Amino acid sequence: MTTDASADNSTTKPATIDFWFDFASNYSYLSIMRIEAAAAQRGVTVRWQPFLLGPIFHALGYDASPFVAQKEKGAYVWQDMVRECRKYGLQWVRPSTFPRHSLLALRVALVGARQPWIGEYCRRITLRNFAQDRDIASADDVGDVLAQLGLPAAQILADAQSDENKLGLRRQTERAQAKGIFGAPMFFVGDEMFWGNDRLDDALAFCASPNA
Amino acid sequence: MTTDASADNSTTKPATIDFWFDFASNYSYLSIMRIEAAAAQRGVTVRWQPFLLGPIFHALGYDASPFVAQKEKGAYVWQDMVRECRKYGLQWVRPSTFPRHSLLALRVALVGARQPWIGEYCRRITLRNFAQDRDIASADDVGDVLAQLGLPAAQILADAQSDENKLGLRRQTERAQAKGIFGAPMFFVGDEMFWGNDRLDDALAFCASPNA
Repeated sequence: MTTDASADNSTTKPATIDFWFDFASNYSYLSIMRIEAAAAQRGVTVRWQPFLLGPIFHALGYDASPFVAQKEKGAYVWQDMVRECRKYGLQWVRPSTFPRHSLLALRVALVGARQPWIGEYCRRITLRNFAQDRDIASADDVGDVLAQLGLPAAQILADAQSDENKLGLRRQTERAQAKGIFGAPMFFVGDEMFWGNDRLDDALAFCASPNA
Repeated sequence: MTTDASADNSTTKPATIDFWFDFASNYSYLSIMRIEAAAAQRGVTVRWQPFLLGPIFHALGYDASPFVAQKEKGAYVWQDMVRECRKYGLQWVRPSTFPRHSLLALRVALVGARQPWIGEYCRRITLRNFAQDRDIASADDVGDVLAQLGLPAAQILADAQSDENKLGLRRQTERAQAKGIFGAPMFFVGDEMFWGNDRLDDALAFCASPNA
């Protein structure tokens, strides 16, 4: 018998979900808080894919977040977040600054993307923004979260701000654009794209289904 | 004891949901097909609120549907519709024309909004657009659906195109704008706004909850 890689692929479940997020994004908050537990229940591995949403919006012709640029939609979103957080049992304080500057926090997420601390780091950063109404922009802000996790904050911040890692995050954003990503959170199961926290459960079900 | 209307209101459930929709809208299709059965299960009455989405988009600065204007989002939406229709057990054929001209069909919906045939009329019109890939623009198109329901098509079409009813639909769209509606489907339970088919179940649950 010969092994046939393509036949293998057709019967092997791609038990991995790519999770594209930006800490500035309020709907990413919901998914960052939910995804690890929900994926674990289905035996799915999360691949954390931080990227900058700003350049994506800019390329689509938005000068700002659509929730800022379109005031009717913006007003709605804050109502929706109150209800969504209640539904999922999450804390919520409407941020006094929106969207918050997330560049450094995302660079650190890229450093940690394959580390065991990534999930908890992301949850603490996003809680800081959306449950504590605190900035996530400075080395002090991000270092504070890293220190809470018992991590070597100074070293990780230095790695995050290396030229290589800065380029790495730009590359992530270019990859996002090449994949047709137009918002966040965005999930991929193979080539299948799912947009928004509302589709997280569908994406995980697809991931775990025999036909995925 | 005196009766206190406001105290009464606080304990009476507003078992009515206002359902704002446009037949041109693909996500309205999902809700048009689902709402009557889902509302009946919770003892909620549906108030059908046809309106024209085009002028709303225009006022928000879109020349066309965002699904046409933003090609990345547009490409995604057709993938999402395939999955959503599978999830809800609905037929789906991607329309060869999008968005379809819905003015006359909406005028008829306004004529029928408080009639017992409104739900079935709306389902047949929207199936024509999104399951049969057929136009819904002309008097023949809309009259065909009315005739299927055994209704006096000629009379209803005449009523729909009366000056009073034309003005009525314009007023609906102005009301939609005044309420901050920026897309469809949109649901209201009292003043509480819920956007999108993804929120239909939440809106109905809110409607039926003691605190609504």
